Amino acid sequence: MSEQPKLLLGPGPSNAPKEVLEAMGRPLIGHMDPEFLAVLDGVNEKLRRVFGTGNRCTLPISGTGSAGMEAAFVNFVEPGETVVVGVNGVFGERMAEVAARAGATVVRVEAPWGEPVDAGALAAAAKKARPALVAVVHGETSTGVAQPLEEVAEAARDTGALLVVDAVTTLGGMPLQVDEAGIDVCYSGTQKCLNVPPGLAPLTAGDRAVAKLMARKTKVQSWYLDLGMILKYMEGATRVYHHTAPVSMIHGLDAGLDVVLEEGLEARWARHRDASAYLVERMGELGFAPMVEDRYRLWSLTTFALPAGVEDSVRAEVMRRHRIEIGGGLGRLKGKAWRVGLMGTNARREVVDRLVGALEDVLG
Amino acid sequence: MSEQPKLLLGPGPSNAPKEVLEAMGRPLIGHMDPEFLAVLDGVNEKLRRVFGTGNRCTLPISGTGSAGMEAAFVNFVEPGETVVVGVNGVFGERMAEVAARAGATVVRVEAPWGEPVDAGALAAAAKKARPALVAVVHGETSTGVAQPLEEVAEAARDTGALLVVDAVTTLGGMPLQVDEAGIDVCYSGTQKCLNVPPGLAPLTAGDRAVAKLMARKTKVQSWYLDLGMILKYMEGATRVYHHTAPVSMIHGLDAGLDVVLEEGLEARWARHRDASAYLVERMGELGFAPMVEDRYRLWSLTTFALPAGVEDSVRAEVMRRHRIEIGGGLGRLKGKAWRVGLMGTNARREVVDRLVGALEDVLG
Repeated sequence: MSEQPKLLLGPGPSNAPKEVLEAMGRPLIGHMDPEFLAVLDGVNEKLRRVFGTGNRCTLPISGTGSAGMEAAFVNFVEPGETVVVGVNGVFGERMAEVAARAGATVVRVEAPWGEPVDAGALAAAAKKARPALVAVVHGETSTGVAQPLEEVAEAARDTGALLVVDAVTTLGGMPLQVDEAGIDVCYSGTQKCLNVPPGLAPLTAGDRAVAKLMARKTKVQSWYLDLGMILKYMEGATRVYHHTAPVSMIHGLDAGLDVVLEEGLEARWARHRDASAYLVERMGELGFAPMVEDRYRLWSLTTFALPAGVEDSVRAEVMRRHRIEIGGGLGRLKGKAWRVGLMGTNARREVVDRLVGALEDVLG
Repeated sequence: MSEQPKLLLGPGPSNAPKEVLEAMGRPLIGHMDPEFLAVLDGVNEKLRRVFGTGNRCTLPISGTGSAGMEAAFVNFVEPGETVVVGVNGVFGERMAEVAARAGATVVRVEAPWGEPVDAGALAAAAKKARPALVAVVHGETSTGVAQPLEEVAEAARDTGALLVVDAVTTLGGMPLQVDEAGIDVCYSGTQKCLNVPPGLAPLTAGDRAVAKLMARKTKVQSWYLDLGMILKYMEGATRVYHHTAPVSMIHGLDAGLDVVLEEGLEARWARHRDASAYLVERMGELGFAPMVEDRYRLWSLTTFALPAGVEDSVRAEVMRRHRIEIGGGLGRLKGKAWRVGLMGTNARREVVDRLVGALEDVLG
């Protein structure tokens, strides 16, 4: 307890600033208390600013990022509808699986791990399948790829499909403006670039998506994630109890969003970009090459192939000697790659220097 | 912030002790960090002691109590199976709704609000319907009724059905021993008698239930709540990442369970019983009569009908002047009843005296 906190440079959770930790430990108040409802209103408004949206339906889902993903599919897809999903890593795979479990017919548009999904292929699939939804992962945390969104949005718009974007690893760390980008549904997690503990999934949905939700012929299969019911608690003069909101987590998110907005999104994005470039440079000195080419590389998380002679077990040694967490490879990259997250407060050159110093020590 | 914390005497969240708040604000560690996995193992072991079970499958679901309810139905029921649900309040209704959304054919066994479900009627329904599951609410938070479980368990066992019990408002506050009672699946919430912030749903499932889960012909409709996948992260030598565990909430639960187990379950139950009886006595002096007869009355939450001349708005005034939260009526009791929760640390005579003093002041 009295030891120095661990430096978390994996795929998340990232380190939370003291304001957030202080808010997490604040005495509780009731979930129907007007004082708490005002905090919640404030959180939703701050989320709108961070998402770059005017969407009324903008709120934290009471679960981790994967609950946000599930909420996006179970609410905006009805059984039997078609969904086109870009799959180039673990989280695209997860989207396809979650959509299928929601009863969707899933059309997969695949790309090699480490590359973005081809917008032309997505457009062709959408033109052919006429899906209700097109879904892509903005920041593929398993590979470190940032998906360009412009052409994907165009492809979705051309077929009248809703565009769903997973921004778990990008929100607050890379340029993303939901309204400007033409995204209909976007969700994230708190434990990455927002520097808030895991447990909430910020989600926003535009009018077209909400209209589809309200016109459903079938009930949403998840009662817990039913956005129509959740909105009755989130807004209006009469707040209708749905489930007990995770009060402490909301307080933590509130404090975390304040830190993000005080710095400003543009400055924060620039800091992530700079730290990421510096990381690639410094890791290069140690023989680590990034797996993704520069123009498609995520700023918040970088994957490196393990150089010859470097074992994956080095990560555990870095943790033991220096209390620094490095992420391991996920899925088919398990044991073959490292994932270094520089998220939010950790996206700084000093942090990179500390990591490289620790690696130099352990690698001898 | 510098004001005295509010005293939370509604249906939850209850107040968290300082050990829990301190744990919530602790610096983060990674969800795959062996240090965290050891904490998680400890939490699961402590939950076994609190549930009174040896069930291997005992863990916190990453959502509030309602996510625990949903996990119970989506995992242990397959579409087309029949479920018998006891309905005598909002949470029985919710169970029926969640089961239906999971594709179950729901047989409702109703009882008037304020009374337990008749075990004979449940047994008859189970005998006729031959359900996969029989489900009841142990502590109906909307009415203040404690459901006797012995005969219900017998009825379920006689037909070979799994028994699912909602213990959101009773775990840690009223006698409940899962193995002894013959309960197959039991879930709770953290924010009631465990005095941990809302956000996790402790759940336990016995071997018979897990065997049914493993033999499913269909996938669990919720990816996020898929217990088979979650167990691969929760146990074994190789922990397989499923979703990012809510690290801070788990730390909070860990600390809360320590407080519970240090006092001991028997002592804690006795304290809830005593405080509840004292509450009824003292509230009687003010003209408030409990809505549930003594033998079926929950110890952790008591419903009172509003006496003539007392408006529901008194609650807001008690909060304003004394910073004490009293719960309002839920569902058809909205505006007609109050719900006073004496949960965990708040189940003490001094707390009752403070509440009664505040009411005396406001009621003049």
